[in-house]
Amino acid sequence: MIEVTTQEVDQLVAWLSSISDGEGEGVTRLLYSPSWNQAVRELADKFEEIGMKVEYDEVGNLYGTIEGTEEPDSIIATGSHVDTVVSGGSLDGQLGILSSYLAIRELLKNGKPKKSLRIVVLAEEEGSRFPYAFWGSKNVFGIADRADVEDIEDSEGIKFVDAMRESGFDFLDGEPRFKDMDAFVELHIEQGNALEKAGLAVGVVNSIVGQKRFDVTLKGEANHAGTTKMVYRRDAVDAMSHMMSQCLDKAREIGDPLVLTFGHITVVPNVVNVVPGEVTFSIDCRHTTQEDLDDFAEWMVQKMEDIAADYNIDIDVDMWMDEAPVPMDEDLVKMFEEVCAEGNLDYQVMHSGAGHDAQIFGPYVPTVMIFVPSIDGISHNPAEATKTEEIVQGIKALAEGLKRLAY
Amino acid sequence: MIEVTTQEVDQLVAWLSSISDGEGEGVTRLLYSPSWNQAVRELADKFEEIGMKVEYDEVGNLYGTIEGTEEPDSIIATGSHVDTVVSGGSLDGQLGILSSYLAIRELLKNGKPKKSLRIVVLAEEEGSRFPYAFWGSKNVFGIADRADVEDIEDSEGIKFVDAMRESGFDFLDGEPRFKDMDAFVELHIEQGNALEKAGLAVGVVNSIVGQKRFDVTLKGEANHAGTTKMVYRRDAVDAMSHMMSQCLDKAREIGDPLVLTFGHITVVPNVVNVVPGEVTFSIDCRHTTQEDLDDFAEWMVQKMEDIAADYNIDIDVDMWMDEAPVPMDEDLVKMFEEVCAEGNLDYQVMHSGAGHDAQIFGPYVPTVMIFVPSIDGISHNPAEATKTEEIVQGIKALAEGLKRLAY
Repeated sequence: MIEVTTQEVDQLVAWLSSISDGEGEGVTRLLYSPSWNQAVRELADKFEEIGMKVEYDEVGNLYGTIEGTEEPDSIIATGSHVDTVVSGGSLDGQLGILSSYLAIRELLKNGKPKKSLRIVVLAEEEGSRFPYAFWGSKNVFGIADRADVEDIEDSEGIKFVDAMRESGFDFLDGEPRFKDMDAFVELHIEQGNALEKAGLAVGVVNSIVGQKRFDVTLKGEANHAGTTKMVYRRDAVDAMSHMMSQCLDKAREIGDPLVLTFGHITVVPNVVNVVPGEVTFSIDCRHTTQEDLDDFAEWMVQKMEDIAADYNIDIDVDMWMDEAPVPMDEDLVKMFEEVCAEGNLDYQVMHSGAGHDAQIFGPYVPTVMIFVPSIDGISHNPAEATKTEEIVQGIKALAEGLKRLAY
Repeated sequence: MIEVTTQEVDQLVAWLSSISDGEGEGVTRLLYSPSWNQAVRELADKFEEIGMKVEYDEVGNLYGTIEGTEEPDSIIATGSHVDTVVSGGSLDGQLGILSSYLAIRELLKNGKPKKSLRIVVLAEEEGSRFPYAFWGSKNVFGIADRADVEDIEDSEGIKFVDAMRESGFDFLDGEPRFKDMDAFVELHIEQGNALEKAGLAVGVVNSIVGQKRFDVTLKGEANHAGTTKMVYRRDAVDAMSHMMSQCLDKAREIGDPLVLTFGHITVVPNVVNVVPGEVTFSIDCRHTTQEDLDDFAEWMVQKMEDIAADYNIDIDVDMWMDEAPVPMDEDLVKMFEEVCAEGNLDYQVMHSGAGHDAQIFGPYVPTVMIFVPSIDGISHNPAEATKTEEIVQGIKALAEGLKRLAY
C-alpha cells in the first residue's frame, strides 16, 4: 500500500479550507462564489502539476485525467464535491477530492496506469447557496433540469444563471461528455457516529438509504384551555403526541437501518392557554431496502390515520420526497473489503444514512463509497473532524482500490 | 322577577360594542385608549341618568351607587371589566356591566334599596394592551404592585404610566376607598361550552379553578437524521411525545374538573433532517381543588422526570404560575340556586375554568358569579355570542339576587 504522512494530509486540508468566503467560522464555499472559483482553479493547477489533463464541463465540474497506457477509454473515476454549507467543516466533500489527489499522486510514483485515472471535482452537492442540490453530479449525467434552476436566486437575490455565467460557465447543451466511467469511488466523512462507536477507521459503503419525507397537518379545534372539558376537546397536539410516541417506539423496535425523525413542529395558535387546534410536523424516514421502507411508511401512515380518527382530528399526509435506496456495486464493495482486509485496516461494511453524490452516480456507473469517521458524528459545523491517522487509512484503501482497478 | 326585553339587551350591547378602537373586526377597547375613555365616560352618564352617584378611584375604576335607605354603608356590588382583548367579542366583560345596569334600573322601579347598590366598572382585566392583568380589580383592594407596571409598555412603546396619566388617572396612593362590600356578583359569559352542551341558560359558579403553568425544557443532542442510529439518539421530541401522551391519557382518565393543555411548543433547530436536540413546551393545568391540582402536578412532574431519565434527556421544569382555586361564597351560591329554581330558570351549579375578576374579589368579599352560555364555547373572538333569551335569564337571576340582598 502507498505511504502518506499525516502532516501532508493536514497541510492539504488546511490549504483548501483556507479558501473560504466571508469571515464566519469554518469553511463557506458556495457554488460560483469567489472562493469556489479560486478553489476550483487552484485544484486544476495542482492536478496539472502531477501531469493530469485538466478539463471543465459546461457547468464547471472539473476533471483531472491521467490517460491509461493500454485502455485510455476505460475511466476509473474518483472524487467528491468542492462546495460546502455555510460555516461548514473542513472535510465534507473536499476530503474526497484531496484524498483522490494524494492517492493518484502516490500511485503515479510506480508508473502510469493501464486504464485512465480521473479525479472528478463536483461543482455542487449541498444546495446551500441556491435551493437546488446535486447540481454537479446531475450535470455529469445530463439529468439536471434547466427549468429547475432558471428562476432560483440566492439569499441576496442573485440569480443562479447570473452567478453561473459570471464564473464563466453555462447550461449543458447537448450530450454530457464525461458520463462514461468504468467505476466511481467517493471517499467521504461518515457524518454519523457508527464508525466511531465501533472503533473503526474505514467504512466500505454497500448502500445509500432511501428517504421518504412527509408533512403531516392535523386539524382539530382551538379552544379555551380552562373552560373546555377534556371530553369535548379536539386537541391536535394530543393526537400528535400519540402518533409520534407510537411510531418512534415501532421504529426503535425494528431498529437499524431504519431511522425515523420528527424534526419540525409548528403549532397553531401556539399559545399557552389555548387548546392547540392545528399542528404541522415533518417526518424523515430512511431505510436501505425499498420494501422495508415502503412497509414501514405504510404502517406509519395507517397508524396516524387511526389515531386521528380516534381523536376526531382531520389529518393530511403529504409525502414530498420519495427517494429510492441506491445499492453500491457489489463487485466494488467486495473488492474494497478485500483491500481493507488484506491491508489490515480497521474497517467494516456499512450503509450511508446521508445522501451523497455517489447516489447520483450509482444508477449509471459501478459506484462505491469509502467512509472515514466523524468525531462525535458532527458535520455541517466548524467542529467537523476526523483523526488524521484514520484519514490516512481511508486514503490507503482508496489508492489500493484504484490500483487494482486501473493498473 | 323583573322583565327585560331581548330588544333592549341587544340595543345596549350594540351601543357599547360600537365604542371600539381601530378598524379591525370585533371590539377592541384597550386600557386607557380613546375608546376606553369614551366607554367609561358614557357609562358614567348612563348611571347618572338612573340616579346613581358616580365616582372614580385613582386608577379609573368607575363606581355607580344608589345609596341604601336604611343601611347605606352596606354595599351590594355587581359588575365586570370594561376592557377587551384585541378584536374581541361583544360580551366578554361588558355584558356584566350592562346586565348590572339593566337589573338595577328595573329594581329601582319598585323603589330604593335598603342597602346600597353599586355597579363596579373595572378598568382592566385582560392584560391585552400592557403585560399586566387584573389591574382594575387588584386596585379595588390595593393589591396591585406599582413596581410591576412602572416600566411596562404597550406594543407601540407607550408607557403604562403615561397612558394612565394621559387618561387623567394615577397610582393609588394610600388606602383604597371602595374595598368594603357585603357582596359582589359578577355576571359573565362562560367562555366554554358546558352550559350549551347541557342545554342550560344560567350557571351559578361555585368555584374558580386554580391554575399551574409550567415551561418545560428538554435537552438532548441534535444529530444528523440519516446517519444517527435510533439507539444512539437523544431525541428531545421523542421524550416530549411520550410525556405529553402519557400525561394527557392520565388527565383524561381523571377527567372533569381537571384540564391539561400543552399549547405551546418550540423545537430547536426545528429542521426536517436534524434529530431535534432541544424542545420547550408549555403546560396549563387547572382544577377546582387545591389538593387534587397539587397531586396531579406532582404526579406529572415525576412522570416527566422519569421519562427524561429513560430517554437520557436533561429536563428543566419551571412552574411560573401557581394560582390557588377560589371558592365562591357558599351562602351566595345557595341563594342564587334558590333564585334560579324558584324562577324556573334553566340553570346548573358549575365551576369556572377561566380566570375572572371575581377571583380577586373572592378572598376579600363574599363573591359569586353568574354565567350565561357561549355559543360553541367561542370567546376572545368577534364570533363570541350568546342567545339573547339566555342573557335575559341571566339578568333576571342577577336582579332577583340583588333584590334579595339589598331590599
